[in-house]
Amino acid sequence: MSQEGLSYAAAGVDIEAYEKALERVKPLIAATHGKEVVAGVGPFAGLYALPGGGHLAASADGVGTKIKVAIAAGRHRGIGVDIVNHCVNDIACIGARPLFFLDYFATGKLDPDVFAQLVEGMSQACRETGCALLGGETAEMPGVYALGDYDLAGFIVGLVDAGAHRDAIQAGDVLVGLRSNGLHTNGYSLARKVFEGVPLNETLSRELLAPHTSYLDDLRRIRWKGAAHITGGGVPGNLPRCLPEGLAASLETGAWEVPPIFERIRARGRVSDDEMWGTFNMGLGMILVVDPKDVPPGEMVVGEVVAQRGPDRVMIH
Amino acid sequence: MSQEGLSYAAAGVDIEAYEKALERVKPLIAATHGKEVVAGVGPFAGLYALPGGGHLAASADGVGTKIKVAIAAGRHRGIGVDIVNHCVNDIACIGARPLFFLDYFATGKLDPDVFAQLVEGMSQACRETGCALLGGETAEMPGVYALGDYDLAGFIVGLVDAGAHRDAIQAGDVLVGLRSNGLHTNGYSLARKVFEGVPLNETLSRELLAPHTSYLDDLRRIRWKGAAHITGGGVPGNLPRCLPEGLAASLETGAWEVPPIFERIRARGRVSDDEMWGTFNMGLGMILVVDPKDVPPGEMVVGEVVAQRGPDRVMIH
Repeated sequence: MSQEGLSYAAAGVDIEAYEKALERVKPLIAATHGKEVVAGVGPFAGLYALPGGGHLAASADGVGTKIKVAIAAGRHRGIGVDIVNHCVNDIACIGARPLFFLDYFATGKLDPDVFAQLVEGMSQACRETGCALLGGETAEMPGVYALGDYDLAGFIVGLVDAGAHRDAIQAGDVLVGLRSNGLHTNGYSLARKVFEGVPLNETLSRELLAPHTSYLDDLRRIRWKGAAHITGGGVPGNLPRCLPEGLAASLETGAWEVPPIFERIRARGRVSDDEMWGTFNMGLGMILVVDPKDVPPGEMVVGEVVAQRGPDRVMIH
Repeated sequence: MSQEGLSYAAAGVDIEAYEKALERVKPLIAATHGKEVVAGVGPFAGLYALPGGGHLAASADGVGTKIKVAIAAGRHRGIGVDIVNHCVNDIACIGARPLFFLDYFATGKLDPDVFAQLVEGMSQACRETGCALLGGETAEMPGVYALGDYDLAGFIVGLVDAGAHRDAIQAGDVLVGLRSNGLHTNGYSLARKVFEGVPLNETLSRELLAPHTSYLDDLRRIRWKGAAHITGGGVPGNLPRCLPEGLAASLETGAWEVPPIFERIRARGRVSDDEMWGTFNMGLGMILVVDPKDVPPGEMVVGEVVAQRGPDRVMIH
């Protein structure tokens, strides 16, 4: 561990290199887009206009190196729940209800028990969501995956009904925070580095493997104008995606309790505040933009929408 | 290399173990299926009924260990074409036209050049197909993928128009074979084992990396009753998927030329006939079931549909 504390880049993940590579290929991707593709809806999911009206929303996701923790602990069911709920949240926050889900499972040598646990988890999460587990691909790739290693990706399609409408976001709207139960599926490369050498006992593995929360019911229950799924990049990387230009978010950190796992990571890894906020969800798995009059009793208001004055689109107080 | 010659199982891929595991989890998957999921359409893709009529067809695929050949040769563009065309064929052979595609790209450390080549290939194939590259997920997973290694999965969604109809398959229908340009994306674990130690020169790498053919135009041009995409499991593993019960396929191997790469694999690895046919496409990337009067001039008739008399659903003469 370096004197300066750990960072995500030091843990082997280079977000800037990815963004540069993405800039290079964006025109190629755009050239495949006909008039059916709706641009500018925020990058949580893609939107495609159906011939008969309405839009399909689609998203692809992975679980990241949380898989390594699952392998070390020998517990895989939750990883199946993770991948489904991550996908569900990505399309739910652009207003889609899930229709069906497919998975891609790749491994060095198929372990029927691991496979069964993953499908159990995916089936459970799909059933709870009213989403069909429509298919998938299972690949044995000796030489790519080490013995016992695997990767799991998910792909979801949902429907945004024709005529669906949300009021425009404006300054004065409030931010409603929906609690996470841990890291969900982001920041594990850094977290694993921080806990390197620490025995993965029952407490730690339970904390690190808590399955990604589905916010579908909350998004149905609460009347919202915008929603941000807090994944890789944390609040600063995700909340601006649902804000119109010229508006920023002001977040009051005292307004909710940050789960203890994040404090342990910060302390043990001497991770900077910026790195913590830019990597982890810090206890907020989803943030909704809500008209103040629409905040249901008991919901957690964690900040508000303000006019943007400086370069920052998210101010954390 | 064993005295008995190489087999797919010896190359590390155990199809039986997978099928056993799948049997175990099928009831869990079925429990997620509402009335919108159409069963029994053959396993190339899943079908989901849209509220407004018509069906969505969806499929997930990987490229398998062909990726290892691409990495060794340092050529990745074709892998992008592979994954799209594999997906396109899977839904085209149940009568769907592609709407959009998403990818999942996972690697140990992002190489911007590899990433750009893959997106170039995917964009090209999507453009040629009239399919939108709607989104994707890129994951850096140090510790899961070795430096330079990666995996690429694809997800496709297509539309089967309401009222689409195909005549029933019957004995006397003929099999029209559509030529493959090589292994496409199947059998690479065995092929790599066979060529172990052989220098990957220009000729061999071009042969092994020829991109998966898209048959979308052929499937639009020819009037067909059934179609089988010949992937993992070869002709015996895939052709029966499009045949009604009680019917079998009789294939005349003299009717087309098997590309030389397959003969080289057979000779060098002393691979049995059964193994060759059960692993590779043997020169037929897609087989269509066609009414004899609908066979366009110049098409390659490779066999016919007959009443099933014994246990075999595919007889190779």
